[in-house]
Amino acid sequence: MVDVETRRVRDRGRPRSGTTLRPDLSAPEQILDAAAQLFVEGGYSATSTRAIADQVGIRQASLYYHFPSKEHILEALLMRTVSPSIGAARSLQQADADSPARLWALIAYDATQLFQAPHNVGTLYLLPEIRNERFEPFRRERKALRDIYAALIAASIATSVRVDLGPTRGSAEQSSLDYLVDVVFGMVESAIAIRADRAGDDANTLVTTIAQSCLRVLGHTDDPLRTISADGRRILAELTVAQDAAR
Amino acid sequence: MVDVETRRVRDRGRPRSGTTLRPDLSAPEQILDAAAQLFVEGGYSATSTRAIADQVGIRQASLYYHFPSKEHILEALLMRTVSPSIGAARSLQQADADSPARLWALIAYDATQLFQAPHNVGTLYLLPEIRNERFEPFRRERKALRDIYAALIAASIATSVRVDLGPTRGSAEQSSLDYLVDVVFGMVESAIAIRADRAGDDANTLVTTIAQSCLRVLGHTDDPLRTISADGRRILAELTVAQDAAR
Repeated sequence: MVDVETRRVRDRGRPRSGTTLRPDLSAPEQILDAAAQLFVEGGYSATSTRAIADQVGIRQASLYYHFPSKEHILEALLMRTVSPSIGAARSLQQADADSPARLWALIAYDATQLFQAPHNVGTLYLLPEIRNERFEPFRRERKALRDIYAALIAASIATSVRVDLGPTRGSAEQSSLDYLVDVVFGMVESAIAIRADRAGDDANTLVTTIAQSCLRVLGHTDDPLRTISADGRRILAELTVAQDAAR
Repeated sequence: MVDVETRRVRDRGRPRSGTTLRPDLSAPEQILDAAAQLFVEGGYSATSTRAIADQVGIRQASLYYHFPSKEHILEALLMRTVSPSIGAARSLQQADADSPARLWALIAYDATQLFQAPHNVGTLYLLPEIRNERFEPFRRERKALRDIYAALIAASIATSVRVDLGPTRGSAEQSSLDYLVDVVFGMVESAIAIRADRAGDDANTLVTTIAQSCLRVLGHTDDPLRTISADGRRILAELTVAQDAAR
């Protein structure tokens, strides 16, 4: 007679070779976790579904039961770098604070996510594969997040910068605003490259520096910036409490 | 008897398949140009030296005469994204302007380079291969550029931000400064991701937006920022004239 623990061990199949096994996760979650590690550390095109299955300790057929192809795994991983921030942005719309504080909180949430997710999946954003038609849904999701940023940024620019962008709210200003959105969005995503360069960084200091810097780019300084940061920190903490309660 | 033009055409070997042939370039330059295009559009690990040689229209043996391996080609390409900016920074040290204007000019030079080089080679920075010992010289060169930024940034921070970083110039401020350098360096390199996302952007507007934004992050606003930008633009133009004259 085989006791339950022994059977569970045996049912896992062949011994797992990975260093970051997560037996607490469901099968699809384990596949995503192993794939993220292999894609980030060994490269996407160099990683086979066989290697992912081996890492998890399952057969390739079991992997295909959950994900029809390697592209589906990559797509799921990429979606997870963007979708939670879209959800956070929606919740923050209800928060009791001005636009600049909401923007501060969204930036901090988004950058924390990029910096602290189990593997640095954002490094895969620039893969040539992602320009394929196949990844259009991900590009659309990332565009949706950028659009949320654009609206919040437009509502958060200080008067002095608005003057720099042009005297009217015509097409010239709209286009200058686009470049400003590019730069702020780029600053948030710079968490990816910073993490790749300097893995030991303190997440909290880095994320605060990024959020403060974005608000400075939009013209906020000194005492007003301190108020924005304090408000942003407060509504972000409220969001985190609400998310934890919903779990 | 074969005239010179016909012989030159015949000597090029097999017909070239690429769309961006540069017959005006030397053989090593043609190899680098073709490799950059194939690495960026098809992926580094998916591109063989055979494919690069085919694209140029030379034999693989001729390619190996110039570059002993694919890694050597990648290294040469990566070095070119960094070394010119180090050279520009050295020239700018002699320029008749304050540190913030020199920083403005360096940022504009560096971002222009990343945004306008024939192919978006910066997208290869996050390849897992680059973490290998083999690419230590490139990582050292990029670190040298970051150190130049760090010194210029430390000399360019406005008083109000310096106060935020801490009252003394002790280790706490040094460490806060490190994060600020990360963010500014990240903003410059965001030209890579912006180019990948929105290829049609106007380089001049984007580069100006990045440079202005970096100076805003360091606490410069309103009239002082306008003076810094004007000075930065002037010394950058002088540098460009000097570089063109030296060619």
